[in-house]
Amino acid sequence: MGIPLRNMHEWSNRNGKMFKEFVFSDFIEAFSWMTKVALWAEKIDHHPEWTNHWNRVSVTLCTHSQGNTITDKDHALARIMDQLYHAQQ
Amino acid sequence: MGIPLRNMHEWSNRNGKMFKEFVFSDFIEAFSWMTKVALWAEKIDHHPEWTNHWNRVSVTLCTHSQGNTITDKDHALARIMDQLYHAQQ
Amino acid sequence: MGIPLRNMHEWSNRNGKMFKEFVFSDFIEAFSWMTKVALWAEKIDHHPEWTNHWNRVSVTLCTHSQGNTITDKDHALARIMDQLYHAQQ
Amino acid sequence: MGIPLRNMHEWSNRNGKMFKEFVFSDFIEAFSWMTKVALWAEKIDHHPEWTNHWNRVSVTLCTHSQGNTITDKDHALARIMDQLYHAQQ
Repeated sequence: MGIPLRNMHEWSNRNGKMFKEFVFSDFIEAFSWMTKVALWAEKIDHHPEWTNHWNRVSVTLCTHSQGNTITDKDHALARIMDQLYHAQQ
Repeated sequence: MGIPLRNMHEWSNRNGKMFKEFVFSDFIEAFSWMTKVALWAEKIDHHPEWTNHWNRVSVTLCTHSQGNTITDKDHALARIMDQLYHAQQ
Repeated sequence: MGIPLRNMHEWSNRNGKMFKEFVFSDFIEAFSWMTKVALWAEKIDHHPEWTNHWNRVSVTLCTHSQGNTITDKDHALARIMDQLYHAQQ
Repeated sequence: MGIPLRNMHEWSNRNGKMFKEFVFSDFIEAFSWMTKVALWAEKIDHHPEWTNHWNRVSVTLCTHSQGNTITDKDHALARIMDQLYHAQQ
């Protein structure tokens, strides 16, 4: 859809945690994606800290049992989120 | 993916009601689609009769307030289901 | 709430499978319960065959990998469904 | 369950917006409540800004079309959230 947003799908490091904002067309799209992620999160037993406001979802990932550092679990959940997001676009 | 299923996206008439089966890759995909449809169904105040079994969802549509006949409301909900389904594939 | 329905919370045997119908106050209550069950089902990797129509959810349980017989997995999922249902009433 | 938390169910005013934190027993309970609220939010076309972290959901309410002030819509959504929360405990 037009010029690709170069850093659209990148995660950034914010205060030692992984951070990314996902943007959807509306609330239903955003919340359905959250449901999909929720099912995966519970399955792999690793949960995000996430904020939703209508069509936007901001995600912060870190591993509490490892002193709030970034671990493989966070990278795995980030990959799931990205894949589910791209599949929906 | 291989030979296209010619009538894949068609609704059929079964005992005077609209009927269609949707197939997904797994339970998470199927249930997330159901969540999306549920949000729309409640919004337009028209609900399906649907059966889910892992990656499959069979849908039956008719309008109870109109003697279980097929009305515009059913066609509207069918269109929403189709659009959300195709967007997810 | 009036006279207790004696067999309300019993599962019956229907064609060699466990069967039960759950009744809710409306669609939102029914679908939210389904979401809760879906999260558990995916977590324990055992899924129901279920039909929803507005405020009703009919559930059939059996274990496909065991020749569609009833196994401990079905009893475990049935218990989860009952507990989540009672917690919501 | 023990000493009632006196202000547990109160909303506070934070920077001119309504704010409240809801605490659940686990992620499944928290996310199922969010699903229920999401269905209502879309139905009444008024959406929260909310942050979830495992068993916690922090909610901020204001009305954007009214200059981010607190309106009847926010009070209505707050009531729905409270009722659904209490019904689940």
